[in-house]
Amino acid sequence: MRIVLDAMGSDTCPVPDVEGAVLAAREYRDETIIVVGNEPLIKQELNKHETSALKIEVVHASEAVAMDDKPAVVGKSKPQSSMHIGMNLVKDGQADAFVTAGNTGAAMTIATLFTLRRIQNVKRPALSSIIRVTNGKTIILLDIGANTDSKPDWLAQFALMGQIYAQKALALSNPRVALLSNGEEETKGNLLIHETAELLKSSAMNFVGNIEPRDMLKGNADVIVSDGFVGNIAIKTLEAMGSVLFNLIREEIKRDPIALAGGFLAQRAFRRVYRQVDPFEIGGAPLLGVNGVVIIGHGRSNAKAIKNAIGQARMAVKGQVIQSITQGLADTPAST
Amino acid sequence: MRIVLDAMGSDTCPVPDVEGAVLAAREYRDETIIVVGNEPLIKQELNKHETSALKIEVVHASEAVAMDDKPAVVGKSKPQSSMHIGMNLVKDGQADAFVTAGNTGAAMTIATLFTLRRIQNVKRPALSSIIRVTNGKTIILLDIGANTDSKPDWLAQFALMGQIYAQKALALSNPRVALLSNGEEETKGNLLIHETAELLKSSAMNFVGNIEPRDMLKGNADVIVSDGFVGNIAIKTLEAMGSVLFNLIREEIKRDPIALAGGFLAQRAFRRVYRQVDPFEIGGAPLLGVNGVVIIGHGRSNAKAIKNAIGQARMAVKGQVIQSITQGLADTPAST
Repeated sequence: MRIVLDAMGSDTCPVPDVEGAVLAAREYRDETIIVVGNEPLIKQELNKHETSALKIEVVHASEAVAMDDKPAVVGKSKPQSSMHIGMNLVKDGQADAFVTAGNTGAAMTIATLFTLRRIQNVKRPALSSIIRVTNGKTIILLDIGANTDSKPDWLAQFALMGQIYAQKALALSNPRVALLSNGEEETKGNLLIHETAELLKSSAMNFVGNIEPRDMLKGNADVIVSDGFVGNIAIKTLEAMGSVLFNLIREEIKRDPIALAGGFLAQRAFRRVYRQVDPFEIGGAPLLGVNGVVIIGHGRSNAKAIKNAIGQARMAVKGQVIQSITQGLADTPAST
Repeated sequence: MRIVLDAMGSDTCPVPDVEGAVLAAREYRDETIIVVGNEPLIKQELNKHETSALKIEVVHASEAVAMDDKPAVVGKSKPQSSMHIGMNLVKDGQADAFVTAGNTGAAMTIATLFTLRRIQNVKRPALSSIIRVTNGKTIILLDIGANTDSKPDWLAQFALMGQIYAQKALALSNPRVALLSNGEEETKGNLLIHETAELLKSSAMNFVGNIEPRDMLKGNADVIVSDGFVGNIAIKTLEAMGSVLFNLIREEIKRDPIALAGGFLAQRAFRRVYRQVDPFEIGGAPLLGVNGVVIIGHGRSNAKAIKNAIGQARMAVKGQVIQSITQGLADTPAST
């Protein structure tokens, strides 16, 4: 398997990106990691690591997408970006997956409109987030921001793509699909939820109804579907609340010496908590609906996150996610 | 001032409700607290407290709304509920405000359709949540669940009502109004956000644009406006994430004796953290748009929460919120 990593993705690229590629090449010895970006910079970083026994290739890209590049513009204005070149390697069959911690909107635009394009019958690609919830369970939430003002048949497709991803790449058997809503009763939800529920009920999916945020975080469903506006606010609220609480705890513990001593003694417990909610343990999540495996990580990714995002890409390729989605959409009335 | 408390509201009513009324009567000596509900039960609870010097009155109600009563039905099926009788006291001018920790949907229906009814020109009443965020700042988020599929002019009214409440009852001068969105740029948001932003820009309000959850929790705006479906998911996600993290920390600290000792030493710090995020410190938030002060608290309210909800009602009455909203809607083009 050949996995492309965008070296110019993360906020502090290419340092964590290249180190993550090295970690991945060490952990997944059978796979080749193709690092795309500014070649001199990449080589400089690679030289900091022992890579002689590793399958790492470098492909030069003369441009890089910045975090503040406008997605609508950058697809045209930087045709030689590492995103373009990396995704085209996948499109041309020279690689199996593309991983980036870069500008999400740009990755989506470049994938959808300039390189990989949509899988046949896909109405809208969807961004997902893979979250580890209580008891080590893993859920996939989509769409988390690609589409606002979604239509019911788009959401039904997100559900199908999410279900296939959960099954094939996350190894969940018969994943439970739910709609993120303001209450679990059938009467709850807005018009979009009501109409989507009808579509899902008549599908072959294991649709378990509406789910509230609390039950989502308990892992009471595996695939949580929402409009991109709502999903984005939910995921950002999760992140914001987590960071507010950790900061508050840190500040309050520092405020008195006894608590500080206590915090010191309890730090192993805190580390265990943090590991359970650390988004970098997952590393990245797929952009679903484009014709190739694309995994997008957080801009703040560290090397471990990059390595784990590459691991996520590897699972998606092994699970033949693209083939399954292509097949699933060809078979399913919701796609017509 | 005379404030009505629904004794039959909270999940464990009337115990915390009545105790909260006693605490409020003690703290706000000038005000009369009218406790409405099952008179024998209320008196039994009152007898547990020293109330001889307090201004507490009891009004009997032969029925009580249960948490699982359907809002659409209970307005008609239980016309003698403590909610009906309590709100009618406000409607008839015998009291100034109504407070309940009961069934939110029922309170809204009974207020809107059976007793107080809407303030003139109000398109839709909105449920709000008052949240204490970083640095002790207070924000008001609305709508958090009364209306799904809101229209732009409804949201513009929520903004106006929230702004007036923030000014009059929360004592914030020139409150900043923002739309909860998936990004702060003007291009972010869904159609509803875009159309509402246009209305708010042309209003006299201090509209500061879109706000993301992270900046909401930093208190970067005072009045956060959203559709009820989205607001409900945001508030439930906040609560769920808070409870997940506190539980995780508790579990992990218990898992090893050193961490447990540390947790013991740090408990004062934890208590300070908890106090800052404890919803019971606020107690309740207004149902805005009905023609009378109605404060709704959480079903899990304890006595302190009930007392604080009564305090919230007191601030709203002192601030002449209803008069100001009536005036504001009469003056504002968005209300026509």
